[in-house]
Amino acid sequence: MFMHNKRLMYTVRVAEPNPVLANMMLEQFGGADGELAAAMRYFTQGLAEDDPGRKDMLLDIATEELSHLEIIGSIVAMLNKGAKGRLAEGVDAEADALVMLNAGGDSHITHLLYGGGPTLANSAGVPFSGAYVDSRGEPTVDLRSNIAAEARAKIVYERLINITDDAGIKDALTFLMTREVAHQKSFEKALYSIENNFPPGKLPGHPDFTDKFYDMSQGEGDMRGPWNEGEQWEFVDDRDDQAAVDGGDGSASVKMPAKDAKAVKAAAARAASDSALNPITGADLGAGPGAGKTTPLSP
Amino acid sequence: MFMHNKRLMYTVRVAEPNPVLANMMLEQFGGADGELAAAMRYFTQGLAEDDPGRKDMLLDIATEELSHLEIIGSIVAMLNKGAKGRLAEGVDAEADALVMLNAGGDSHITHLLYGGGPTLANSAGVPFSGAYVDSRGEPTVDLRSNIAAEARAKIVYERLINITDDAGIKDALTFLMTREVAHQKSFEKALYSIENNFPPGKLPGHPDFTDKFYDMSQGEGDMRGPWNEGEQWEFVDDRDDQAAVDGGDGSASVKMPAKDAKAVKAAAARAASDSALNPITGADLGAGPGAGKTTPLSP
Amino acid sequence: MFMHNKRLMYTVRVAEPNPVLANMMLEQFGGADGELAAAMRYFTQGLAEDDPGRKDMLLDIATEELSHLEIIGSIVAMLNKGAKGRLAEGVDAEADALVMLNAGGDSHITHLLYGGGPTLANSAGVPFSGAYVDSRGEPTVDLRSNIAAEARAKIVYERLINITDDAGIKDALTFLMTREVAHQKSFEKALYSIENNFPPGKLPGHPDFTDKFYDMSQGEGDMRGPWNEGEQWEFVDDRDDQAAVDGGDGSASVKMPAKDAKAVKAAAARAASDSALNPITGADLGAGPGAGKTTPLSP
Amino acid sequence: MFMHNKRLMYTVRVAEPNPVLANMMLEQFGGADGELAAAMRYFTQGLAEDDPGRKDMLLDIATEELSHLEIIGSIVAMLNKGAKGRLAEGVDAEADALVMLNAGGDSHITHLLYGGGPTLANSAGVPFSGAYVDSRGEPTVDLRSNIAAEARAKIVYERLINITDDAGIKDALTFLMTREVAHQKSFEKALYSIENNFPPGKLPGHPDFTDKFYDMSQGEGDMRGPWNEGEQWEFVDDRDDQAAVDGGDGSASVKMPAKDAKAVKAAAARAASDSALNPITGADLGAGPGAGKTTPLSP
Amino acid sequence: MFMHNKRLMYTVRVAEPNPVLANMMLEQFGGADGELAAAMRYFTQGLAEDDPGRKDMLLDIATEELSHLEIIGSIVAMLNKGAKGRLAEGVDAEADALVMLNAGGDSHITHLLYGGGPTLANSAGVPFSGAYVDSRGEPTVDLRSNIAAEARAKIVYERLINITDDAGIKDALTFLMTREVAHQKSFEKALYSIENNFPPGKLPGHPDFTDKFYDMSQGEGDMRGPWNEGEQWEFVDDRDDQAAVDGGDGSASVKMPAKDAKAVKAAAARAASDSALNPITGADLGAGPGAGKTTPLSP
Amino acid sequence: MFMHNKRLMYTVRVAEPNPVLANMMLEQFGGADGELAAAMRYFTQGLAEDDPGRKDMLLDIATEELSHLEIIGSIVAMLNKGAKGRLAEGVDAEADALVMLNAGGDSHITHLLYGGGPTLANSAGVPFSGAYVDSRGEPTVDLRSNIAAEARAKIVYERLINITDDAGIKDALTFLMTREVAHQKSFEKALYSIENNFPPGKLPGHPDFTDKFYDMSQGEGDMRGPWNEGEQWEFVDDRDDQAAVDGGDGSASVKMPAKDAKAVKAAAARAASDSALNPITGADLGAGPGAGKTTPLSP
Repeated sequence: MFMHNKRLMYTVRVAEPNPVLANMMLEQFGGADGELAAAMRYFTQGLAEDDPGRKDMLLDIATEELSHLEIIGSIVAMLNKGAKGRLAEGVDAEADALVMLNAGGDSHITHLLYGGGPTLANSAGVPFSGAYVDSRGEPTVDLRSNIAAEARAKIVYERLINITDDAGIKDALTFLMTREVAHQKSFEKALYSIENNFPPGKLPGHPDFTDKFYDMSQGEGDMRGPWNEGEQWEFVDDRDDQAAVDGGDGSASVKMPAKDAKAVKAAAARAASDSALNPITGADLGAGPGAGKTTPLSP
Repeated sequence: MFMHNKRLMYTVRVAEPNPVLANMMLEQFGGADGELAAAMRYFTQGLAEDDPGRKDMLLDIATEELSHLEIIGSIVAMLNKGAKGRLAEGVDAEADALVMLNAGGDSHITHLLYGGGPTLANSAGVPFSGAYVDSRGEPTVDLRSNIAAEARAKIVYERLINITDDAGIKDALTFLMTREVAHQKSFEKALYSIENNFPPGKLPGHPDFTDKFYDMSQGEGDMRGPWNEGEQWEFVDDRDDQAAVDGGDGSASVKMPAKDAKAVKAAAARAASDSALNPITGADLGAGPGAGKTTPLSP
Repeated sequence: MFMHNKRLMYTVRVAEPNPVLANMMLEQFGGADGELAAAMRYFTQGLAEDDPGRKDMLLDIATEELSHLEIIGSIVAMLNKGAKGRLAEGVDAEADALVMLNAGGDSHITHLLYGGGPTLANSAGVPFSGAYVDSRGEPTVDLRSNIAAEARAKIVYERLINITDDAGIKDALTFLMTREVAHQKSFEKALYSIENNFPPGKLPGHPDFTDKFYDMSQGEGDMRGPWNEGEQWEFVDDRDDQAAVDGGDGSASVKMPAKDAKAVKAAAARAASDSALNPITGADLGAGPGAGKTTPLSP
Repeated sequence: MFMHNKRLMYTVRVAEPNPVLANMMLEQFGGADGELAAAMRYFTQGLAEDDPGRKDMLLDIATEELSHLEIIGSIVAMLNKGAKGRLAEGVDAEADALVMLNAGGDSHITHLLYGGGPTLANSAGVPFSGAYVDSRGEPTVDLRSNIAAEARAKIVYERLINITDDAGIKDALTFLMTREVAHQKSFEKALYSIENNFPPGKLPGHPDFTDKFYDMSQGEGDMRGPWNEGEQWEFVDDRDDQAAVDGGDGSASVKMPAKDAKAVKAAAARAASDSALNPITGADLGAGPGAGKTTPLSP
Repeated sequence: MFMHNKRLMYTVRVAEPNPVLANMMLEQFGGADGELAAAMRYFTQGLAEDDPGRKDMLLDIATEELSHLEIIGSIVAMLNKGAKGRLAEGVDAEADALVMLNAGGDSHITHLLYGGGPTLANSAGVPFSGAYVDSRGEPTVDLRSNIAAEARAKIVYERLINITDDAGIKDALTFLMTREVAHQKSFEKALYSIENNFPPGKLPGHPDFTDKFYDMSQGEGDMRGPWNEGEQWEFVDDRDDQAAVDGGDGSASVKMPAKDAKAVKAAAARAASDSALNPITGADLGAGPGAGKTTPLSP
Repeated sequence: MFMHNKRLMYTVRVAEPNPVLANMMLEQFGGADGELAAAMRYFTQGLAEDDPGRKDMLLDIATEELSHLEIIGSIVAMLNKGAKGRLAEGVDAEADALVMLNAGGDSHITHLLYGGGPTLANSAGVPFSGAYVDSRGEPTVDLRSNIAAEARAKIVYERLINITDDAGIKDALTFLMTREVAHQKSFEKALYSIENNFPPGKLPGHPDFTDKFYDMSQGEGDMRGPWNEGEQWEFVDDRDDQAAVDGGDGSASVKMPAKDAKAVKAAAARAASDSALNPITGADLGAGPGAGKTTPLSP
C-alpha cells in the first residue's frame, strides 16, 4: 500500500517562470528515462519477484522514484505557473500570447493541450509509452536493464543541469541525478549477488558460436581490441566463413503439404514476372509530354 | 513524498493459475482506464492545482489508485506465476508450452516478452500511453474528465467480474470497482463546489449558436428528446440553414502577399489537371493482356 | 450515408498566411480533443446504439463534428497556403526557407513531411490516435465521457482564441467553441434522461466501500470538503485502517498445482540472491582507476 | 458541410452473431487500409487542393468512404450485438463468458474495453494512427499514394471475403471491395491528367544517377529483368563502383569552429577506449562461481 | 547475409555544425518516408517473395537503401557533432546551452535525450513506427505501394534540398533524391512485367459497381473530368440512387439466438432514454449561481 | 556501404508450416528486443562514435544483427508460406480459412493485413517503435544499454526455443541466442576498456546523497543485503529523515512577476472551491428515481 506525505523529498525553489525550461524538464517526467518509467520498472518487477531481498529493494527504489516524480513534476508546475495563469485569464494581447507559447521547445502543446501541468509526455510532446519499461521477468536480465536505465537517467539529468542556471532547480536536479548513481550501485550489488549470473537464463549457448567475433564491417578503420581479440575470441574475417556458418547452403526452405504447395504455386504463377519483355509503364507515360494521351473526353 | 507499506490495501487470494485470465486483468493495470492511468491523472492534476481542498483530494485519490495498481498487479502476478515458472525452467514439452502460451487473450506476449509479470500494456498487448491521461489544467474540465474516467473504470471492472469465477479475485475486483464509484462521487462533489462551473473556462459562448440543435442526420429514425427539444433549444433542420450559418458564402479564403500568391499560382500550374483529355493510365495498361507491352528486352 | 455540400458550415476568412498559427490549429484537427476525435466518438457510439433517440442524436452531432473538422481544416490550409507554395516552388533562398519553416511550433514537420495540408496530427506533430476515442459501449458511461470531451474541446478552443488576433479566424473559432457548449448540454440531457444513471452499469458497489474516503495523503495541507465530509462519507485516516481493508493479512497468494510449484521453486533457486556476501560489481570495477584491469592484450 | 441520411449506402444483413469475425472486420474500420484512413486521406488532400477538378473528385470519394465506414461499422456492430448484450447483463456463467470473449482474434479487448462497438482499432487491437494517412501535399505524389492505398484496401477486403461464409456480409464486402477498384481507376485518371507527372515535384534528378542500377545483393539467384536491364539502365555490379560513387573517399566529415572541436576532443578523450588491455568485466565476474566475491557482509 | 564496407556510398562533406538542420534531416532517417522505412519495406517483401527476379531486385534495392540510411545518418551526426561535444563537456554558460538546443525544430530532444546521434525519430521527435512499412504480401499491391513510397521520399528530399545551403549536403541529398527516382522506375517496370496486374489480387470486382462514380459532394465547384466522365464511367448524382444501392432498405440487421436477443433487450431497457421528460442536468446545476446548492456541510 | 550476399548466415530448414509459431517468432523480428532493434541500436551508435575501436565494433555487430534479422525473417516466411498461399488463392472453405487464421497468437493480423510476410511488428501485432532503440550518445551509458539489450534478447530466444519442437528452427534459434551472449561479452569488454566508466558522464554526484539507501517500503518482508548494507551504504529508514532531505520545508514554490501572480490569483478565484457547502451533484440526480426530473417536455 502506498501512502503520501505532503512534504516533498526535496524542496523545490524556482527563481522565476520559464515555460521553455519547463518543457525540457518533461524529459524526466514523462520521457523514456524519466521517473515514471523508473518507478514502474521497479514496481512491476517487485510485484512479480520471488526473492525476498530483491523484492524489498525493488519496492524501496520504486517508491523513491515516485517521490522523485513528484519533485520533477513540481518543478514543471512551478516553471509553467505564470504562463498557465496568463493564458487562462487571457491577460496578454493575442500576438504576445502566441509568442509566449512559442518561445521554444514544444511548450506550445504543454500549454494549449495540457494546460501547463506536468504531463505524461517528453520534451517533444510524445506521450509516455509503456514500452519504455523493458522488464522481462528474469532477474539477471532485469537487473542489467535497471543498471542501464539508471545510467541513461543519470546522463539526461546531467544535460538538464547543463542548460539550467536557476540555482534552486540545479540543486534539486543534482539530488535526483545523484540518486540515479546510488540506485545503479544497488542494482549492481543485487546482480552480482546472484551466482552464475552470466549468461542470463538457463539455456547455455552453443559452444561453436560463443567465442567467435565476425568482422562484418571491413575497410579502412578496422581495429582490434579486447572485444574481439585475446584468448576469449576467435576472429572470423573471411567472408566465406561468415556465410552459412552451420555448413549448409545458406538457403531457406520449408516442407509443405501438397495442398499448401499447390496453392503457393498457383499464387506464384498468377503474379509471375515476365522478365524478358520491357513493358511500357506508368512512369513512361508520365515522363514525356503527351505520351499516350490521345482521346478527347467529349466531342 | 510517497511511502510504501508492504501490506496490500486488499488481500489477494487466487485459487489457481490462469494465464488467460491474467492477460484480461492487464486491462486495469496498463490499459486505458486502468489504475496507472487513474493514479497519474489525479497526481498530475494535484501537482498543478492551486485550490488547497482539491489539491488534497487529488493527492489522496492518486495515492489510493497507486495502491489499487498494486492489487491488480498482484492478481496478474499470481495468475501468471505457474506458467512463468514452467516456461523459465522449460519443464514442458515444447508443443505443450506453445499451447499453454496460446490458450487465449494475448497471453503469449505476456510470457514471451514480459516474462509473466504485470506489465504496462493492455489485454491486447498495446503499451500504456501517456495520452490516456487527458488532464487539461482547468478544474471544471478535469473534474468532468475524472468523473467520466471513473465511470469507464467501473464498467470495465464489471466486465472483468462477469468473466471471473475465482472467488478471491471476484472479491478484490468488487472492492476495486466500488472504489471507482466512491471516487466518482468525490469528483462530482468537487465539481459542483465550484460556482458557475458551466460552461467551463472563462470565455462565454456566442449567443447565436449556444441553443441551436442542427438536425444533421435525417431520414427514418429521426426523433426528438430533451437534448434537442424544449425551451432550451432551437431546432434547425432545413439544410440551407445549416450551411454557412454566419451568413457568408461558405467558402474558405486567405489574403496572400504577392510573392506567396505567385508561388501558389506557379505550383498550381505545374500540377494542373487537364480534365478534357482521357489519358491512358497505369491501370489501363495493367487491365488487359499485353496492352502496350511490346519490346523484347534482349535479342 | 454521408453527403457533402461544398459550402462550409461557417465561412472561413483568413487575413494572412501564418504557418506557426496553422500548426497550433492542428490541435483541433488531429489532436486529442479535436474534431476528428469528436466525430468518431459519436459516430462509433451511434452505430452500436439501440436506443432510437440517442442514436439519432449521436449521428446528428457526429455529422456536425465532421463539418467542423472541415472548417478547422480549411483554416489550416489557408494559413499554410503561402509557405506551401513557396517551398514547392523553391522561391526563397535556402536559409530563408529554413527560417520560414522553423518560425515556431512544429510547423517544420507540417511542411517538410505533410506538405502544408491539414494533417492527422496535433500541434507537436504526434499522429492522431484511435485511443483518443474512449467509447465503452455503455450509455451512462459514454455520455459522461462525451460531456467531458466537449468540456475539454471547449477549453482548447478558448486557448486558441486567446492566441489569435485574426478576426476571421477568431469568429470561426468562437462558433466552434460555442457548439461544444451546446453539445455538452445535449449530452447532459441525454444522460439524465436515463433513470438511475448512477452508478453506471448493472452491478452495484459493495456497501462496505462505497462511502469511505481514505485519507491517503497526509501532512500540512490536509483539508476537508464535501468530497470527503458530510453524511455521505466515512473518513478513514488511520493508516492501519487503510491497509488490508478486507480484514486479511494484506498479502498476495496463489494455490499452485505441484508441477507449477516445483518449477517456480527451481527458478527461484537458480536466481537466488546471496544477501550475506558483498560482491565486487561492474560499478566497482568501473569506479576506480585500473581496478582489476591487468592483462595486456598482445605482446 | 456534411449531411447524413439514415439509410446506409448498402444494406447490411448479418445471419448470426460472431464476435471473432467482428474482430477481423475491424481491419477495415480502424485499420491501416480501412475506410477511416481512406476517408481522411482524400478529405485532407481535398481541403488543401487548388485544382478544382481534383478537389471535387477528392471530396466525392472522401464522402463515399465515410459512407463505407458506416457500412463496415454496422457489420461489426451487428456481429457483436449478442455478445455485447450477454456480457452487459451477465447472463452467462463466468467461465462461459470468458470462453465467449476468448474465442479468437482479439475479440476480448473489443468487448472488455470497447464494449462491443465498432472501434478505431485494427484486428489486433492496435489503435488507429494518423500516420496511416500519408498525404504529402504534392498531387503527383499523393495520387500515387492513393492508387496504392486503394490496391491495399482491395486485397484486404478480398481476404476478409475469403474467411466469411455469411452471404449478407459477403455481399456487402464485395460491394466495398469493388468500390476500391473503381476509386483506383479514378485516381489513375487524375494522375495521368497531369502532364509530366514523372518524376514527381519540381527538381530534376541528377543525370549521373538516374539510370544506374546498383547490384547490391549478389550470389546465387542473381537475375536480370526490365527493372535493371535494357536501354534505360546502366548496371553496376562491381563493388568498387558502388562505393563512394561521387569519386570522393567515402568518409564523413564536418568543419567545426575551434570551440566545438575542442569540446569534441575532450569528450572523446574522456571516454577513450584502451584497446591494448584486456579488462575484467562484469560478465567475467558473473560467469564463474564465486569470481571476485570475497567480502562477507557482516561479522 | 549483409556485409559492410567502411566507405560510404556517397562522401559526406558538411561545411559547419547546425543542429537545427540536423533535426530536419531526421525526416529521412527515422521518418515515415525515410531510408529505414524504405530498406525495411523492400527487405521484408524480398524475404517473402517467390518470384526470383523480383526477389533479387527487392534485395538489391533494400541493401542500397541501407547504404543511404548510412549517408543521411552520417549527415545528421556531422551536423550535430559540435553541439553534442559542447553539451557533453558543459563548456557553455547554461543559458547559452539552453538557447543552442532551442534554436529550432525539435533539436532539443535530439540532444537532451538522444545525445546528438542520428535517431529513429522524425523531425518532430516522433519515434519511427513499423506501421510506416505497408507491405501486404501481394506483388501487384506492394509494387504500387513501393512506387508511391519512392514518390513520397523524392518530394521530401526535394524540400530538404530547398532549405539547405550547404553545398556538400546539397550534393548528397541530390544523389539520394535521384536514386528514389531510379527506384521508382524499377518498381514500375516490375509491376508492368506482371500480366493482368489490375485489379490487384484474384477476386474480380462486382460488375454493377466497378464503373460507377458517385457524386457525393455537390454544390458550387462540381466538375467533371476523366476520373468520372467518359465511356468508362456511369455518373450517379441523384441522392436516392446513392443510398442503399443494393436495392434494400439501407438498414442494418442481425438475426440473433433467443438468449442473445433477450439479453440485448434487457440491456436496452436498463438504459432506456425517457425522451418525454426534460430532466435537470449537471450543466443546469452548474450554469447558474447557487442552483440547488443548499446544505451547509457542518454546523 | 552495405552489401548483400544471397546466402544466409545460417541455413533455415523448416519442417512444416505453422502460422501460430510464425507469429511468435515476430517477437525477434519486429519486437522490442528483436534483431531490427539490435541492428539499429548499434548502427546509430556507430555512426556517431568517435572512438575508432568502438566504432568498428559497433558496425561489425550492427551488420551481423542485420544478417540475423534476415534469418529470423526467413523463418517467419517459411512458417507462413502455406497459409499465405491458401488464403491468396482462396482454396479453403471460408469457415476453415477463418479457423486457420485464428489458430492462435495474433496470426490473424499477420495474414489479413501483412499477407504472411515477416513484418515490423511483435507477436501481438504492435508495430515496431523507434523508441525501442535507447541510444543516448554517451559510451558508458550506451554500452550498458547494449549489455542489457543483449541479455533481454537472449532470454526471449530461450523462451522461443522452449516452445519450438521443429529441429531446424531450434538450431537456428540456438545460433541466434548464442550470438547474443557473444555480443554481450564484446560490449562488456568495451565498457571496461574505458577507464573510470562509473558513474557515467562527466558530472560527479553530490556526496551527501551518493551512499544513502532510503528504506521507502516498510513492513513485514524488510530485508538487508549488499545493495543497502555494508560500508558503501548509509541506511535511512526514519520517515522524517526521508522527507525534505535538503533540510528545507519540502514545499514547492516559484517567484512570479506581479502580472503573472495576478493572473494566477484570478484564475484560482474563478475556480475556487466552496468547501463549506454540500452541493447537489449530477451523481445525486442520477442515483435516485426521478430525482429532480420534473418537467414534461411537450404538452
